[in-house]
Amino acid sequence: MITVLCGGVGAAKFLEGLIHSNLNEEIVAIVNVGDDEEMYGLHISPDIDTIIYTLSDLVDRERGWGIKGESYQALSRLKELGAPTWFTLGDRDIGLHLYRKHLLESGHTLSDVTTAITQAHNLPLSLIPSTNQKLRTMILVEGEPDELLSFQKYFVERRHQPTVKGLYFLGSTEAQPSPGVVEAIESSRAVIIAPSNPLLSIAPILAIEAIRGALEKAKERTIAISPIVGGRAIKGPADRILESLGYAISPEGAAKVLAPYIGTMVIDTVDAHLSHSLESGGLRVVTTNTMMTSIESKVDLAHRVISEAKDLS
Amino acid sequence: MITVLCGGVGAAKFLEGLIHSNLNEEIVAIVNVGDDEEMYGLHISPDIDTIIYTLSDLVDRERGWGIKGESYQALSRLKELGAPTWFTLGDRDIGLHLYRKHLLESGHTLSDVTTAITQAHNLPLSLIPSTNQKLRTMILVEGEPDELLSFQKYFVERRHQPTVKGLYFLGSTEAQPSPGVVEAIESSRAVIIAPSNPLLSIAPILAIEAIRGALEKAKERTIAISPIVGGRAIKGPADRILESLGYAISPEGAAKVLAPYIGTMVIDTVDAHLSHSLESGGLRVVTTNTMMTSIESKVDLAHRVISEAKDLS
Repeated sequence: MITVLCGGVGAAKFLEGLIHSNLNEEIVAIVNVGDDEEMYGLHISPDIDTIIYTLSDLVDRERGWGIKGESYQALSRLKELGAPTWFTLGDRDIGLHLYRKHLLESGHTLSDVTTAITQAHNLPLSLIPSTNQKLRTMILVEGEPDELLSFQKYFVERRHQPTVKGLYFLGSTEAQPSPGVVEAIESSRAVIIAPSNPLLSIAPILAIEAIRGALEKAKERTIAISPIVGGRAIKGPADRILESLGYAISPEGAAKVLAPYIGTMVIDTVDAHLSHSLESGGLRVVTTNTMMTSIESKVDLAHRVISEAKDLS
Repeated sequence: MITVLCGGVGAAKFLEGLIHSNLNEEIVAIVNVGDDEEMYGLHISPDIDTIIYTLSDLVDRERGWGIKGESYQALSRLKELGAPTWFTLGDRDIGLHLYRKHLLESGHTLSDVTTAITQAHNLPLSLIPSTNQKLRTMILVEGEPDELLSFQKYFVERRHQPTVKGLYFLGSTEAQPSPGVVEAIESSRAVIIAPSNPLLSIAPILAIEAIRGALEKAKERTIAISPIVGGRAIKGPADRILESLGYAISPEGAAKVLAPYIGTMVIDTVDAHLSHSLESGGLRVVTTNTMMTSIESKVDLAHRVISEAKDLS
């Protein structure tokens, strides 16, 4: 079994490579829910949905999220009525959110719902939300006065422009891992931390104590792929957030966030010069092409990471 | 001021005539909420929406409900996912339901929401849900064993085919009239009961004690338009339900349901032969064309009813 800790777009691309790698092994993806948002009575799980849309080839590849060829009739009606429409909801996307709400209202957990959606799309892996409880990433942004925003308010409504002063994970003390999460970490021959934003996508998973505990014990079997390449984030605001919270905008910055939980770091060839410094910090370092621009490069990266995992087990 | 007690399609057509009658008078429509349904976390108010779609000319005229030229992307996605899709929700219609949910979640009442939607469509009347509390029409239908269904389950999922054995109004004891309902009935020079199903659309309004009390005092000023013409319901199952609950399928059957609250009954010319029997039951009877097949016939009916109201005030 291989377990992957996941955020959204970067994780989805990595999983795409993984499920096309003829791995012949169970894949369990533990997905961040810190970005989830309740809107208009719906429960939106952006990271889970991005993974599902990507792996089922429904995704709008240009944006990296949402459904290709999507229509926006419901949203245009919301706009006519004067409702806030900063969060783009396509009609087919809304269909999924209505389905999720339908199951949640019938008493199912977010895990159950995620399993049902994964199976409805015939995906060859298990997706598990990190927790079935409410855990939300809250972002303190600079202003007069400073403001505390939900992830989506920060990321979408404010277009991740404000300077981030702090990250808090609302509900993390009470949140228990979803069934199967700790077991997957414990029994996997390798745990992979996908190239997702370490502070915004992985840290909310690490905010759950029982997951931290399991990961600490799996440290030697855990491999992180750096989402920072050549001093920049592949996508999104990871670089700016690392910087404003005092981390280097480099694989070293990412490694510092993940340090207690990883034995190996995969970095891009353009960052090969950082190997020595990472190694002197106690990490094994794998240098390879990490840019997932085609299905071939995704499969290549998956193969490389998996072959590294073989040496650890 | 003119107050109209309303169900869905028949009431919407009558209100259409009324707002095009150059009445120069405030119109307050008190609308049934017994058909409301919570689905997928949304709050659907079919009677309110049918009135709004009809008066704003968005309605699909052929069906009498829903939005013309509607798309069904969200619903097709729900079907793919295996969710129950017996209730037809168009994408633009969903936009309205999301907006309603957004306002309800922000702490607004159904009245507030309905006012906001009415104003967003620039409609020249006030729409007030009969109550802001949860009041639901429950239908006991014949079977082995008998079943209790929500209105929408009976009407849409079962296509109003089962034989109705009883009607119950869940929550009616606790339900208070929305603000303005009793005041509108008290201060209107006429109260009109639209040609809506008396048992399914009007009775759930009458189920609220304070509304019944106000209507009893307004009896002489209250005019009902029979929804039964020539021994048949214009639309829907009113005829079968009247029969199975022991009422005549005629204006007399409708009059019997509404008897404690009306002084005048408007019947179609094809039912003129029933005038005498209705009059001997103590009602004033107005005979006119009640078939609202064009905007002209709608305005004509409104004029006829309003001129009758003039004689009462």
